[in-house]
Amino acid sequence: MTFPATCDRLVTNGQVLTMDGDFTAFPAGAVAITGTRIVAVGPMAEAAQVRAAEVVDARGGIVLPGFVNTHCHAAMVLFRGLADDRPLDAFLKTVWAAEAAHVTPETVRAGATVGLAEMALGGVTHVVDMYFHPDATVAAARDIGIGLTTGPVFIGFDGIDRLPWPDRLRFAEAFVARHRGTEGVELMLMPHSAYTLDAEKLAEVAKLSDRLGLALHIHAAEAPSEMALVAAQHGTTPVRALDRAGMIRPGTLLAHAVHLDDAEIALLAERGVAMAHCPLSNAKLASGTARMTALRRAGVATSLGTDGASSGNDLDMFHTMRLAAQMAILASGQPDAMPAREVVAMATRGGARAAGLGARKGMIARGMDADIIVIDLSAPHLVPAYDPYSTLVYAAGRSDVRQVLARGRRIVADGRPVAEISKELEMLRAVAAGIAAAAPDGS
Amino acid sequence: MTFPATCDRLVTNGQVLTMDGDFTAFPAGAVAITGTRIVAVGPMAEAAQVRAAEVVDARGGIVLPGFVNTHCHAAMVLFRGLADDRPLDAFLKTVWAAEAAHVTPETVRAGATVGLAEMALGGVTHVVDMYFHPDATVAAARDIGIGLTTGPVFIGFDGIDRLPWPDRLRFAEAFVARHRGTEGVELMLMPHSAYTLDAEKLAEVAKLSDRLGLALHIHAAEAPSEMALVAAQHGTTPVRALDRAGMIRPGTLLAHAVHLDDAEIALLAERGVAMAHCPLSNAKLASGTARMTALRRAGVATSLGTDGASSGNDLDMFHTMRLAAQMAILASGQPDAMPAREVVAMATRGGARAAGLGARKGMIARGMDADIIVIDLSAPHLVPAYDPYSTLVYAAGRSDVRQVLARGRRIVADGRPVAEISKELEMLRAVAAGIAAAAPDGS
Repeated sequence: MTFPATCDRLVTNGQVLTMDGDFTAFPAGAVAITGTRIVAVGPMAEAAQVRAAEVVDARGGIVLPGFVNTHCHAAMVLFRGLADDRPLDAFLKTVWAAEAAHVTPETVRAGATVGLAEMALGGVTHVVDMYFHPDATVAAARDIGIGLTTGPVFIGFDGIDRLPWPDRLRFAEAFVARHRGTEGVELMLMPHSAYTLDAEKLAEVAKLSDRLGLALHIHAAEAPSEMALVAAQHGTTPVRALDRAGMIRPGTLLAHAVHLDDAEIALLAERGVAMAHCPLSNAKLASGTARMTALRRAGVATSLGTDGASSGNDLDMFHTMRLAAQMAILASGQPDAMPAREVVAMATRGGARAAGLGARKGMIARGMDADIIVIDLSAPHLVPAYDPYSTLVYAAGRSDVRQVLARGRRIVADGRPVAEISKELEMLRAVAAGIAAAAPDGS
Repeated sequence: MTFPATCDRLVTNGQVLTMDGDFTAFPAGAVAITGTRIVAVGPMAEAAQVRAAEVVDARGGIVLPGFVNTHCHAAMVLFRGLADDRPLDAFLKTVWAAEAAHVTPETVRAGATVGLAEMALGGVTHVVDMYFHPDATVAAARDIGIGLTTGPVFIGFDGIDRLPWPDRLRFAEAFVARHRGTEGVELMLMPHSAYTLDAEKLAEVAKLSDRLGLALHIHAAEAPSEMALVAAQHGTTPVRALDRAGMIRPGTLLAHAVHLDDAEIALLAERGVAMAHCPLSNAKLASGTARMTALRRAGVATSLGTDGASSGNDLDMFHTMRLAAQMAILASGQPDAMPAREVVAMATRGGARAAGLGARKGMIARGMDADIIVIDLSAPHLVPAYDPYSTLVYAAGRSDVRQVLARGRRIVADGRPVAEISKELEMLRAVAAGIAAAAPDGS
C-alpha cells in the first residue's frame, strides 16, 4: 500500500486493526485520509514522509473501523429506563403512553441528537435507525456528523406520528425523494413488524421497496409474545409471514431474529437476509438468546445492534459486543463459542455488510469511507493488553474511545463530541420531568 | 438525623441513596463525615449550617455507599486476557504456566496495586481478595487506600508460592498475627477449593479457623469440570464435601456457588453461609448461571464479585451488576426477575453482609464507615435518569464515578486515583511483554 506525498489527515502510531477478511493488523501503523475516504493504510515506517494537514496521534492506542450499529431507535433515549423491572406488557403500555404524549418532531430531534452523540462517543460511526419523524433524525445525524441509514416507518395503525395508511405511503415516497443523495444518509424502508402490519400491508411495502429500489429493515422473531401474536394474526411464524409477503430476500435486515427454527435459518442464509443481534435488549426484556452459532455456521450475515435505550438501556456497542460473546458462551457451554475477534468483526465489517454498505464501510482499506476510531489503552483496566480483540470485547468501554472520524470528519475529539448538545440534553431532562410528574412512581 | 455543627468532610447536594433496608433516599441530600465514619446523613436543607473542613460537591450526581466486591484476585490483572477464547483446560494450563513463571511478591504488589486502583476508579471501596503473597496485596491496598479483606491461601500442593503444607500452616498463623488490627484490613482464611484440598486438609483449615476466630472464603461449585473433579476426589458435591469438613457454617463466604441443588441451597440458608456471585467470570468461562432467584428466595446472603481479571476480564462492579441482572432475567424468562435496586443492594449492603462487615459497611448511615462514592450523571448516556437504581445498573459505568472516599479518605478525586501507579503499570507491561515474547501467539 503506497502512501501519498500529501493527505488531509494522517492517523499515526496506532495499532491498526483493519478488520479485513484476513484480520490484517499493523502493530505500529498509519492511515491516510483525503476528503471522506481512506487513501492508504500501512506500517508507520512507510508513512514517515507523508505531509498531512492534520495529524491524529494514536500512539499507544488501537485504530479500528468505526462500529456500525445495525438496529437502533436513537430518539428513544427520551424513555431510557422509564419502565424497567416489569413484565413486557406493562413495559410496552408505559412506553407507548409516554410516546403518544411526548413524541413530536422537536423531541425526536433532541432525543436523536443525544442518542447519536452517545453513540459517537462510544465509537459508532454509522447507525441503522428506525423511528417516527425520520426527518428529525436526519437533521440530528447531520449535526453530530454520524452516518445514518434510515427511512420511513410503516405501521398498520395510525401510530404516534398520526399518519393514516394512505398518508403514510405518500410520506414514505416523499421522504425517499427528499433524502436520496443526502450526504451521509442511506435509505431503507422500515416496516415495523409482522405483528403491527397485516399480510396485505406487508406485501404493499415489499412492492414499494421494489419500485424504489430500497432494501427493508424490520423487527422479526424478537420475543415469545411476538411469536404468539404473529401466530394468531398470520397463522405462522414471523419469518414465514414475511416470506409470504416477499420480504425474505437479499438486502433485508431483520432486527433481533431470536426465535428461529433450523429451516428459517437455512432460508435466511439462502436468500441473503442479514440479521441485527441485539443482546442488551434481548437480555433485559427476557426476549431470549439468538442462535448466533447456528446463524453464523449457516452463513447468515450477522451484525450487532444496540436497539433503543428504552430497551437496553444504553447505546453502547462495547457492552453489546461483550454481552453477545457472553450470551453465546453461556448458551453453548463453550468458552470458545464466540472468539473476541469474530465479535469485533460483527461490530464493524459485519455491520457494514448487513446494512448493505460492505463495499464502503466496516474496514480500514484504501477507497473505504474514513470511518475510524482511536481507542486509548492507558487506563488501568486495559493494562496489560495481550490481545487487542480480547481487550476490545472484554475490558474496554465507551470511555476509552478518544477520537472518532466519520467520513473523514472528526466528530469526537479527545473523548468529547465536536457538536454542542447542551440544549438537547436540557430538552430531554424537561420531557423526563414532565413524564415523572405525571406518574411519580415511574409507571 | 441531626447534623453536627462541624465535621471533616461534607458531601453536598447529591441524590443520596442510603441503601438501608428501606431504600431510604434523599433527593437533595448531604452526608457528614468525621475521621473514618459517617456522623450524619439527611436532607441538604438540614445540613446548610454545617462547617466542614472539606466539601465534596455531588450536585447533579448520585451518592452511594461504595461497592463491596466479594470475590477477587486483584493481582491477576497480570494475566488479563492472556488466554481467552479457548476451552477451560487450555485456559487454566496457560494461566498456571504464566503464574509459575511470573508470580513473585514484587509482581503481586504491582498487579494488586493496578487491580485495586482499577476497582477504586470503578467505585469499589472494599474488596475480598484471595491470592498468593497476601502481604503484597495488603501493601498495595494501603497505597491505594481501599478496604481489604484477605488472608492466607491454602492449597493442597506446593502452589506458586512454593510453600509445602506445614510451612503453609505456619505462614498462615504468622500472617494473621502480623495483620490482626492492621487498619483497613479484615482477615479471613482462604482455602482454595475442594478440588485442590483433600478432606483432611479441609478439616485442618476449618479447625485453624475455629482456633483463630476467623471466617472462611473458598471457591465452591463454580463449573461442571469442578463438579466432576470433586465427585472423583470426595465422592460428593463441593458443598457437601465442605460440610463434612465443618466449613458450611456462619460466616463462610462461597465464591461462585453456581451448581447447587435445592438441598444445598436450603443448607446454605440454614447455616448462614453467604455467596459471591461472579457473573463476568461465570459467563466468559462458560461455568453456568448461578441460581440467584432460588438463593435469594431461600434467604441466602447474596453478593457480587468480579473474580480476577484473567477470568472476567476486568474488575468492574457496574458490568457485574448489569450482567447479574441480565443473566437472572434470561434464566428466568422474566424481565422483573432481578429488579435494579436489588442488584445495587447486592453490590453494597449485600456485599458488606456477605463479608461479615454488615454492621460497619454497605449503607450510608450514622456510625458506618465513610465508604462513599459520587456518580456523575451528566454524560449523554445517563440522560434522562428516571430511576436512579435502573440508571446505575443499566446505563452507568466506571467512567461515571467521580469521587470515592474509603473510610473517610479520598482515594479517587475527579475520576483519577489519588495514588500514583505509573511504576506499577510499567511493571505490568514489562511482565506482559515477557509472556508475549515467550509465546507470541498468546498461548
